Amino acid sequence: MKVGILMGSKSDYPIMKEAENILKKFNIEYEIKIVSAHRTPEYMYDYAKKNDVSVIIAGAGGAAHLPGMLASLTSKPVIGVPINATPLNGMDSLLSIVQMPKGVPVATVAINQSANAALLAIKMLAIHDANLYKQLDLFRNDLKLQVMKMELEDE
Amino acid sequence: MKVGILMGSKSDYPIMKEAENILKKFNIEYEIKIVSAHRTPEYMYDYAKKNDVSVIIAGAGGAAHLPGMLASLTSKPVIGVPINATPLNGMDSLLSIVQMPKGVPVATVAINQSANAALLAIKMLAIHDANLYKQLDLFRNDLKLQVMKMELEDE
Amino acid sequence: MKVGILMGSKSDYPIMKEAENILKKFNIEYEIKIVSAHRTPEYMYDYAKKNDVSVIIAGAGGAAHLPGMLASLTSKPVIGVPINATPLNGMDSLLSIVQMPKGVPVATVAINQSANAALLAIKMLAIHDANLYKQLDLFRNDLKLQVMKMELEDE
Amino acid sequence: MKVGILMGSKSDYPIMKEAENILKKFNIEYEIKIVSAHRTPEYMYDYAKKNDVSVIIAGAGGAAHLPGMLASLTSKPVIGVPINATPLNGMDSLLSIVQMPKGVPVATVAINQSANAALLAIKMLAIHDANLYKQLDLFRNDLKLQVMKMELEDE
Amino acid sequence: MKVGILMGSKSDYPIMKEAENILKKFNIEYEIKIVSAHRTPEYMYDYAKKNDVSVIIAGAGGAAHLPGMLASLTSKPVIGVPINATPLNGMDSLLSIVQMPKGVPVATVAINQSANAALLAIKMLAIHDANLYKQLDLFRNDLKLQVMKMELEDE
Amino acid sequence: MKVGILMGSKSDYPIMKEAENILKKFNIEYEIKIVSAHRTPEYMYDYAKKNDVSVIIAGAGGAAHLPGMLASLTSKPVIGVPINATPLNGMDSLLSIVQMPKGVPVATVAINQSANAALLAIKMLAIHDANLYKQLDLFRNDLKLQVMKMELEDE
Amino acid sequence: MKVGILMGSKSDYPIMKEAENILKKFNIEYEIKIVSAHRTPEYMYDYAKKNDVSVIIAGAGGAAHLPGMLASLTSKPVIGVPINATPLNGMDSLLSIVQMPKGVPVATVAINQSANAALLAIKMLAIHDANLYKQLDLFRNDLKLQVMKMELEDE
Amino acid sequence: MKVGILMGSKSDYPIMKEAENILKKFNIEYEIKIVSAHRTPEYMYDYAKKNDVSVIIAGAGGAAHLPGMLASLTSKPVIGVPINATPLNGMDSLLSIVQMPKGVPVATVAINQSANAALLAIKMLAIHDANLYKQLDLFRNDLKLQVMKMELEDE
Repeated sequence: MKVGILMGSKSDYPIMKEAENILKKFNIEYEIKIVSAHRTPEYMYDYAKKNDVSVIIAGAGGAAHLPGMLASLTSKPVIGVPINATPLNGMDSLLSIVQMPKGVPVATVAINQSANAALLAIKMLAIHDANLYKQLDLFRNDLKLQVMKMELEDE
Repeated sequence: MKVGILMGSKSDYPIMKEAENILKKFNIEYEIKIVSAHRTPEYMYDYAKKNDVSVIIAGAGGAAHLPGMLASLTSKPVIGVPINATPLNGMDSLLSIVQMPKGVPVATVAINQSANAALLAIKMLAIHDANLYKQLDLFRNDLKLQVMKMELEDE
Repeated sequence: MKVGILMGSKSDYPIMKEAENILKKFNIEYEIKIVSAHRTPEYMYDYAKKNDVSVIIAGAGGAAHLPGMLASLTSKPVIGVPINATPLNGMDSLLSIVQMPKGVPVATVAINQSANAALLAIKMLAIHDANLYKQLDLFRNDLKLQVMKMELEDE
Repeated sequence: MKVGILMGSKSDYPIMKEAENILKKFNIEYEIKIVSAHRTPEYMYDYAKKNDVSVIIAGAGGAAHLPGMLASLTSKPVIGVPINATPLNGMDSLLSIVQMPKGVPVATVAINQSANAALLAIKMLAIHDANLYKQLDLFRNDLKLQVMKMELEDE
Repeated sequence: MKVGILMGSKSDYPIMKEAENILKKFNIEYEIKIVSAHRTPEYMYDYAKKNDVSVIIAGAGGAAHLPGMLASLTSKPVIGVPINATPLNGMDSLLSIVQMPKGVPVATVAINQSANAALLAIKMLAIHDANLYKQLDLFRNDLKLQVMKMELEDE
Repeated sequence: MKVGILMGSKSDYPIMKEAENILKKFNIEYEIKIVSAHRTPEYMYDYAKKNDVSVIIAGAGGAAHLPGMLASLTSKPVIGVPINATPLNGMDSLLSIVQMPKGVPVATVAINQSANAALLAIKMLAIHDANLYKQLDLFRNDLKLQVMKMELEDE
Repeated sequence: MKVGILMGSKSDYPIMKEAENILKKFNIEYEIKIVSAHRTPEYMYDYAKKNDVSVIIAGAGGAAHLPGMLASLTSKPVIGVPINATPLNGMDSLLSIVQMPKGVPVATVAINQSANAALLAIKMLAIHDANLYKQLDLFRNDLKLQVMKMELEDE
Repeated sequence: MKVGILMGSKSDYPIMKEAENILKKFNIEYEIKIVSAHRTPEYMYDYAKKNDVSVIIAGAGGAAHLPGMLASLTSKPVIGVPINATPLNGMDSLLSIVQMPKGVPVATVAINQSANAALLAIKMLAIHDANLYKQLDLFRNDLKLQVMKMELEDE
């Protein structure tokens, strides 16, 4: 039950490491790799054919083709993270990832929100793992407690 | 292993029934309901707490709050389908669904692409179901064959 | 005649405290709370059912669901403040708040303009309060005097 | 307790009469007038100074100045309805109405959503009218019942 | 033959003084004033009725109503300068100024381009002033010479 | 005192003839020509050098270069009409016309609003023509009367 | 000296056949194929490796990955045609094609403008073919003559 | 086999010199000039008629007319580089360059991506130059090796 985190360039790592942090927190096995749809297309093909990951998270900016191409090459769920990497504020990346044609879905999250991509991967794994599901419930509860404890007075 | 398909109004059904068609084709158990975040908020709360569905697909247009609110109320994966229902061509709906804050992901698909939402749900279920995974491989193969057989000459 | 000011996170407070400042200036009773549609959905439900506030102001960024969900849960007027909190410059938040479906209005103000949300709340309260209405007239007069006194020469 | 419904041209009437319908349904006194910021600016000034309306609803398309100019001329709450009247799908109208500067709020609703403008006006009037507030609760309940009764089977 | 330069606030002056600089360079008589459509609407009406200016330049940001309202109140040409003053990068201001309805034109220039507004005013005045027209020809020639003299080597 | 109306193609004529109608109504001499920046660039150069027109109106769609190029070739005022001629609803044309660099203004009107371009040309000519100015005042008065006479009852 | 015209689906053919028409007109050898980045990714890889085409034209809609992926797999020039195939008017397709990262260019033309893609391909081939270059000059001359012959009178 | 690199102003040089760097790296002869469509239109005409360049690269911001006007004046391929030079993040420039009408293509690359413009020019020249083609293959291989060597650990 391993999750693969892919990104097109080392420069995407500051965004993508939030996904890594979430997976660590939930003790999910993962690997993190630089795989570029445009610069290492053959390697991307090979990666998509690998058998030891259950879910793939892929972050990309601009004309972001990595998540969609992975989705076309494997039957595993692919989660796309649009990265804000051009003057267009991530809108180019968002549309390049989310507007996939019928038959080839990418599960898209918010611009730069790789943490949510990891949580989504965990939710998928938790469909058959009651213990993991319970951890997600606790995580949601923690979010609630964090909000409840916030105080505006001491600002 | 049931999938819940929700939509805010009967008028969304022509779009959402493509999700239904895909689930039928893969013999996945599902239920399809009208649940509105804005008009039946309490019912939405209750639905989110139900135990017999594994994945929720939610379609909504305009200020589309149904997928995100469901995601805040359950630890199950929620897939959002932005529906083109206002003069803004679905851009309002897409942004209302995909731009979720850290901690509460919605797996967003393309505007009006409920078929892809269903395929994504199946990919999630197939993580632990080798047979279902094989069906997805066959489905991808069928897509390929359909394209290979297309002929431009007889246009 | 109390106004409730809600926001999804402490990080919204620098924007939302302008609403607080306006309400103080007009001596309107208010309370200010952190209530998140996505992280504290049950608390949001409870807040919407409270009886001691007359108008609710809610600020939110990104996929901003707080104002619209409150509007679905109460018959009180809800004023939404889109907050610029993602790379999309507040356009995601604006559309998530303003594009509400028939039956469930949110009174939307400009991106980051929580001062105007407070003024709108006061205008609502002033419908039945001639004294408050007079204060609003004086406020508009002050705006005019401020502009009239501006001098470009000493720049 | 009268509501004024204004629009810039007769061609806006098909959109604006939904506001009229809602006010009729709630037995709220109203008047409906054609007042153009650009073609009858003096009349607009005079209208803003009138004393017998409590809330003003103003619909306008394109470079929509009517709601904002009314808001600058009166202390009454002004509700703006962006109308989709140019090739830009109402985005020009929405931004012209909602992006008002500090000190001069317009309560903006969704593009073409004049019904919601009327409901918002009623919510304002209901702040001091328990009976009207009860009618709004019933209206919300009716919305819920309509959704609960919808059936997808007989499609 | 005087040009009036108006702006809604002192904060617009850094942008609008480029118009002033151009008019000075061409020795055109001008006056520069702070007039706000929203905060000094009556003063705006009075200004529009003045007889001693031939062309009006008006800069405004956000929901920018100043140029369009002036155009509705006078038969003189009005030139609008959209100012980038909100998170929306001036798009709100551009659309609020340029999308005027039939019958009430505003001559719109680029976002923040008040220098061009001044040049446009001068072009209008030069229709009947051969000497001024000659100055404009010289100005265009200067632009050309500046470009011809630019050297990339000494960068 | 002649006005030149230019357009890039015969297909723009349905939009541009509204400019013609306005000029006829005011008895302004004009000529109307097809001149394409992209298909007849030399002819465009020649036209810009002509001496017998006082103001040039140019309509263009898509990557609309005609108004801006004319403005770079003459010191006469050039008025640009963005035409909605591609899937982008005229936004491409609007930005191609209005966003001119410092030194080379185009007086831009709303998308498809060639009538306003003609009115703007007349306002320019009226700077030195008190009679024409009076006609513009009457025209504005007619707009007002048309609005005042509109009745919603007989709809 | 063959040109390859690719498209993702038969439904793109009405747009792409304009490219075919232009190539026929210039007597350029070509082949036209359905190749989908998402449904026939392996075939796309193979096509990119083919040796008998000199330039590739690729049309695609939505999250349009075909042109960019081809560009990553071959050193031949790839021309991308964004196709308007979703509610977003081709903006999704345009950004998915044009916003390619450093190192992997796609020569992008206007939305739906496959005729221009063909002309661009011919311009590339004409760099070494003086006769073909002369044909392009004649083509430009024909465009000019067509415009010169247009008459507005007989409309 | 010379490439011409043009830009409208010295201020575009930081963006355009990446094109220069790529051409140097491939030992392609080039010249680099400041030519402005709006300030030196006659010089632009002359440049377009020159015979010693095979491909023209043109960078421009805002209402970017340089690439399109060059394309209308020559049969050589013209590559357009949209430059982010106004508050609109380069969207104005992108649309002004890419949305060219039928008959007059500009090969458009990503906003600020002048390196890709140079690579595209080289791909065009390589159609008849097997050695240059081989260099492009090596360049693509280098891109791959750079990605393969990136390590996330030493961040």
